Amino acid sequence: MHLSIERSDVGRSVERLSAALFGPKRVAVVGASRDPKKIGHIVVDNLRKAGYPGEVIPVNPKGGMIAGAVAEESLTVAYERHGDIDLAVVAVPAPAVPAVAEEAGRIGVRALIVLSAGFKETGQEGREREAALVRAKSQYGMRVLGPNVIGVIDTHTPLNASFAADFPDAGEIAAVSQSGAVLLSMLDWAKREGMGFSRMLSIGNKADLDEADLLLLLEPDAQSRVILMYLEDVKDGRRFVDIARQVTTRKPIIVLKSGTSELGMRAALSHTGALAGSDRAYEAAFRRAGVIRARSMQELFDLAWAFRSPTRPMGRRVAVVTNAGGGGILTVDQLDREKLRMASLGQETIERLRTVLPPAASVLGPVDVLGDARADRYAAALQAVLADPGVDSAIVLLCPTAAAEPAATAQVIVDAQAAHPDKPLFAVLLGGAQMAEAEMILRRRRIPTYPFPERAVTALARLTAHALKGRAPASDAGDGPSDPGTDGRAADETFVDAASRATAIEVLQAVRADRRKALLSGEALRVLEAYGVPTAKAHLARSADEAAAFAQAIGGPVALKIASPSILHKTDIGGVKLGLRSAEAVRRAYAEIVDAAARRAPDAVVYGVEVQAMLPPGHEVFVGMMRDPTFGPLIVFGAGGVFVNVLEDVSCRLAEGLDRRVAAEMIGETKIYRILKGYRGAPPVDVAVLEALLVRVARLALDVDDLFEIDLNPVLASSEGVWAVDAKMTLHEGGSGQESGRAGDG
Amino acid sequence: MHLSIERSDVGRSVERLSAALFGPKRVAVVGASRDPKKIGHIVVDNLRKAGYPGEVIPVNPKGGMIAGAVAEESLTVAYERHGDIDLAVVAVPAPAVPAVAEEAGRIGVRALIVLSAGFKETGQEGREREAALVRAKSQYGMRVLGPNVIGVIDTHTPLNASFAADFPDAGEIAAVSQSGAVLLSMLDWAKREGMGFSRMLSIGNKADLDEADLLLLLEPDAQSRVILMYLEDVKDGRRFVDIARQVTTRKPIIVLKSGTSELGMRAALSHTGALAGSDRAYEAAFRRAGVIRARSMQELFDLAWAFRSPTRPMGRRVAVVTNAGGGGILTVDQLDREKLRMASLGQETIERLRTVLPPAASVLGPVDVLGDARADRYAAALQAVLADPGVDSAIVLLCPTAAAEPAATAQVIVDAQAAHPDKPLFAVLLGGAQMAEAEMILRRRRIPTYPFPERAVTALARLTAHALKGRAPASDAGDGPSDPGTDGRAADETFVDAASRATAIEVLQAVRADRRKALLSGEALRVLEAYGVPTAKAHLARSADEAAAFAQAIGGPVALKIASPSILHKTDIGGVKLGLRSAEAVRRAYAEIVDAAARRAPDAVVYGVEVQAMLPPGHEVFVGMMRDPTFGPLIVFGAGGVFVNVLEDVSCRLAEGLDRRVAAEMIGETKIYRILKGYRGAPPVDVAVLEALLVRVARLALDVDDLFEIDLNPVLASSEGVWAVDAKMTLHEGGSGQESGRAGDG
Repeated sequence: MHLSIERSDVGRSVERLSAALFGPKRVAVVGASRDPKKIGHIVVDNLRKAGYPGEVIPVNPKGGMIAGAVAEESLTVAYERHGDIDLAVVAVPAPAVPAVAEEAGRIGVRALIVLSAGFKETGQEGREREAALVRAKSQYGMRVLGPNVIGVIDTHTPLNASFAADFPDAGEIAAVSQSGAVLLSMLDWAKREGMGFSRMLSIGNKADLDEADLLLLLEPDAQSRVILMYLEDVKDGRRFVDIARQVTTRKPIIVLKSGTSELGMRAALSHTGALAGSDRAYEAAFRRAGVIRARSMQELFDLAWAFRSPTRPMGRRVAVVTNAGGGGILTVDQLDREKLRMASLGQETIERLRTVLPPAASVLGPVDVLGDARADRYAAALQAVLADPGVDSAIVLLCPTAAAEPAATAQVIVDAQAAHPDKPLFAVLLGGAQMAEAEMILRRRRIPTYPFPERAVTALARLTAHALKGRAPASDAGDGPSDPGTDGRAADETFVDAASRATAIEVLQAVRADRRKALLSGEALRVLEAYGVPTAKAHLARSADEAAAFAQAIGGPVALKIASPSILHKTDIGGVKLGLRSAEAVRRAYAEIVDAAARRAPDAVVYGVEVQAMLPPGHEVFVGMMRDPTFGPLIVFGAGGVFVNVLEDVSCRLAEGLDRRVAAEMIGETKIYRILKGYRGAPPVDVAVLEALLVRVARLALDVDDLFEIDLNPVLASSEGVWAVDAKMTLHEGGSGQESGRAGDG
Repeated sequence: MHLSIERSDVGRSVERLSAALFGPKRVAVVGASRDPKKIGHIVVDNLRKAGYPGEVIPVNPKGGMIAGAVAEESLTVAYERHGDIDLAVVAVPAPAVPAVAEEAGRIGVRALIVLSAGFKETGQEGREREAALVRAKSQYGMRVLGPNVIGVIDTHTPLNASFAADFPDAGEIAAVSQSGAVLLSMLDWAKREGMGFSRMLSIGNKADLDEADLLLLLEPDAQSRVILMYLEDVKDGRRFVDIARQVTTRKPIIVLKSGTSELGMRAALSHTGALAGSDRAYEAAFRRAGVIRARSMQELFDLAWAFRSPTRPMGRRVAVVTNAGGGGILTVDQLDREKLRMASLGQETIERLRTVLPPAASVLGPVDVLGDARADRYAAALQAVLADPGVDSAIVLLCPTAAAEPAATAQVIVDAQAAHPDKPLFAVLLGGAQMAEAEMILRRRRIPTYPFPERAVTALARLTAHALKGRAPASDAGDGPSDPGTDGRAADETFVDAASRATAIEVLQAVRADRRKALLSGEALRVLEAYGVPTAKAHLARSADEAAAFAQAIGGPVALKIASPSILHKTDIGGVKLGLRSAEAVRRAYAEIVDAAARRAPDAVVYGVEVQAMLPPGHEVFVGMMRDPTFGPLIVFGAGGVFVNVLEDVSCRLAEGLDRRVAAEMIGETKIYRILKGYRGAPPVDVAVLEALLVRVARLALDVDDLFEIDLNPVLASSEGVWAVDAKMTLHEGGSGQESGRAGDG
């Protein structure tokens, strides 16, 4: 992707499409109906009720009046009588849609919204129908939203080109949903909670416009300050990541991605006919893109409240002000779980608080203004706390005590935020009936407001993490590995040149020529060496004597391993012997390995036994690569050896963009890192070399598409260096694999 | 505790107290005031407004009319004029409370509710005041709730002896809160959400009645079907566990425990002056007691909806019915996270569904009744699904599509539950404004109802786990270790006799005589051997020659370890050498260890070096004991060796009640169990022996109070047996330690 080059073109086409979809001068509704229960009627009615300022033309072969507007017999007639039609909404039965699309293209409609269902989600016939729709849009350079969508809403135009039963309040949140029903749920939920939207759309089958296109459309919209998405899959993974990376620099994107479970994926398949990538790949892709991932629908909305305000914290130090000790403790508990810190108030602040609060009020820990606090006491406490330079953000809790003044306190909170616009102020109204008015005051003024402290803290934690990401590590940034400088690149990782790739391709071609899918350990190590990854050299012995000779040449203890393309888990069948120190031991081990293979894997082709030097003692880590069908190669790092699948102590990133800084992050996320960095007096592992190894494996994965999977297990990491001891690599099933395969991951 | 013996006495006193607190014939309000803003006025007014059927007597030295009732000058006068006073509510300033309590005791008041604050939470003076209050109650056999409480509410009596601003709707949930403000929040939140209560109380400072007493009071109350608690600490840990264990057999107890973080604990200290036990101990205690722990306030209420209905699932198979694919996928994702299973519908059910649903409706995976479903289609689908014997519970989702009929569908759900009262049916109303009426219909008929699928699934998962606990493991019970039979006891764990304890005490006395707190490894292993725990024998050598001689006697490879009471982490200072095979190697190792100790722990007292046999290869696990000040000894099991603190792959239980079944559960919970049970072809560890080891260590901890902490690390576990290789034991700081110490955990 070279978006910066295409930028101006993209910009112009986005502008044109944006104008047609969200601010059309003239809208035709094809399939408009006189029956008020029909979608074709509801859309016309919705456009009118929302106060759409442009012209609405119902299209119905019978003509007449529909929802107060004069209907035309066809799109063509509408065009001839009224002029250019920017947007056409299609509500005819699915079989009639391709012809309508064809007609729309012919008369120069810019954007088509296809509400009708009955396309690829319903089987072969539907798929063909959808293909015809796509042909029409391509032929005429028209863009299509859908099919199988609710439509498009813009509260600022205002435009309601949808069949939603309701029109949302105007606000600064844009919502995009792959499921129409979920979009309706969001709208209805928001109505009750007082959440407003700028734009709402569902994307349905994504025959043309997909989630990435919609991001491009929402990016320049000044009314949309945050983007919420419900996604079941992503159509073009790499494009999505590239575009989302750009958009998130301007406005936050919060995504609820469903289909995370295997079961869920099956449901997703039957629902949208889409192939869902593995959840781990989505996680890595969202991280690379800077997308904030909500873990539930509740959290999606909780985060929406937090992110729609423009205020961002500069650090993790949170002050807590409460009229109830219990609420304060719950808040502090959650701060701890979410890796935020309670702010230590400065001496000046503490003295100030002591003068404005009663003597019994606690000012260490949460500031407890006491159960008899009225609004004025909150005002004094908030003023003192927010002025403290040691405070990055604050949470204020209100319980409905006898003295509490919810509405007045809400106003105090709004004023405090206005006086300190640089520090996020979150409110927890711990109650219900008595809090309703206060809640509306706070939400109207964009104070993130929650009924329970834990949800407020979690939302603040996500906001804080997002705000601090990418900033130069501050003193409180935690304990990641080495700091390779601001550009995240060290000299040693750029050395990989064309020759490396040529060597790798050559090895792979030999494997293909041999009609194999799996590389031998020696072949895999050769590929690694070409990419500058240190390995434990292996020599293929075809007899016990040859093995003993190799062992002598290596000098020092050696390991023997079965060499067979068809035995992937060598240890399991007794195919590995370690720490062999004498020629006799090597010969015996050779015989035992060959014997074990013959017994336990009788059908396996055995090439011989590999002889490898034993390395200095170290920690076993795992480095892997899996090629995701949606997002491309993923790099995995974690605890290695037999623990890799048991502990699942792993971190994962896209290979794309994996530099030293990202590698350091990956290593720092695992539990094994606490051991690697020198646990209880042991010398620390050379983490910089480990980081470089990850960068090199990522480079290999990006360079050589034909590699489907890489397992380096174990990689031995010690203070003296890092070595890939064993390597498994497999190629794509069949073919040259130059395109990304669709086979399942290993 | 021998509750069964004391049962009838306890029963009678509970009955008397219960009658006085919740259904008194006559209530006096001491400190009643004419000022409607004063608490002393609000209580009188609340009693009247709630429709309390008994006699209310305001007590005020000036007499007169207060909130519509004639005031008496004193409690004594009230008693003389009106007769026995069951309950007195005290709202006078704290300094006057002890005298009121004394007077109340004298005239035979049974229960005293002290609303006033200003006791132990405020310092020395307050603590003395509280002590005086306790003396008065003890002298007269009166019981006291508080001080520092909101009061007592019973919606069925009805009684509102509190200063809450509102009176809850009647319902089947009892709520107990250590924080008055949190109780008010619960009441206010419930008002808006339509949740009703049977009784509400706050427990404040627990000068007399504590959480365990309140459980005893709520247990026999037929109106209270579930008990919600907000706790900051537990006063008497062992009594709480004993009583809660009994109560939970009759009704569920759901607890939100705050102060889980270190920071939170500090806040709890300054709030109630209570010493909070470690969170891990609470976790183990709640588990032992059968208490359901809510992880947030949101979850507390979510679980309340789920548990107040009497319906319990018989298994983990959940059917999902939805009018929106997206909602179905989110539900299935969460089922997967919560270890529930999507039900596989029987052939008969599938055929039935195919006849009642449109052809496009999906019936594999979630049953998708489609976006155009009205209430009747839900009725048909629910009927088919709930009749399926392969379904244990069901979740029904409703999105506000154009066709949706929320209120009618709610009625359909209520009817379906009535027709299948044996299978929990949970509702998700994915929306807000359009769902309000449906929500009220469902909640009135006790259908657990949520706005988002994830919260519904989590609540159902907790309900399911609670219902299945203690049942004989069904085929879907997961993969715990051995099944020692229904009574959970195997013969080999009862062998520990008095002689074992005598040996242990003898060793400990010698350590005390030596003015030490830490046992030498050899001493600790001797204690373990007395309790039947297999150990790697160690011999204390005082010279290199002596070490070599021991090594020869042991025969085979040995390990050498520094013997010093002041060096606890031996490996860190180079105090351990392994796999020594020759006399020469043993001598050299001896010298190196002594040298290392001299250099790196120059102040340590060194007794010599211990010589131990090397054991067969195995896995390193950890077994530990920590004595919690609130709940007594805790047993910890997990991955051992250097990983123990890094991986935190541990499970934890109270020593009390730790039998083979519990030990098997503990082992099965850890990740390391996947390795122990025979990972990738390796022979499985003898898990039965490991279970017995845990039982024996628990027995030791219960027998010998003076032991403060035990660390067995590593315990070597292999297919040939299980051995404690190294053991650290420490005694209580100073004293004989026969009482539980209050020192912090190691």
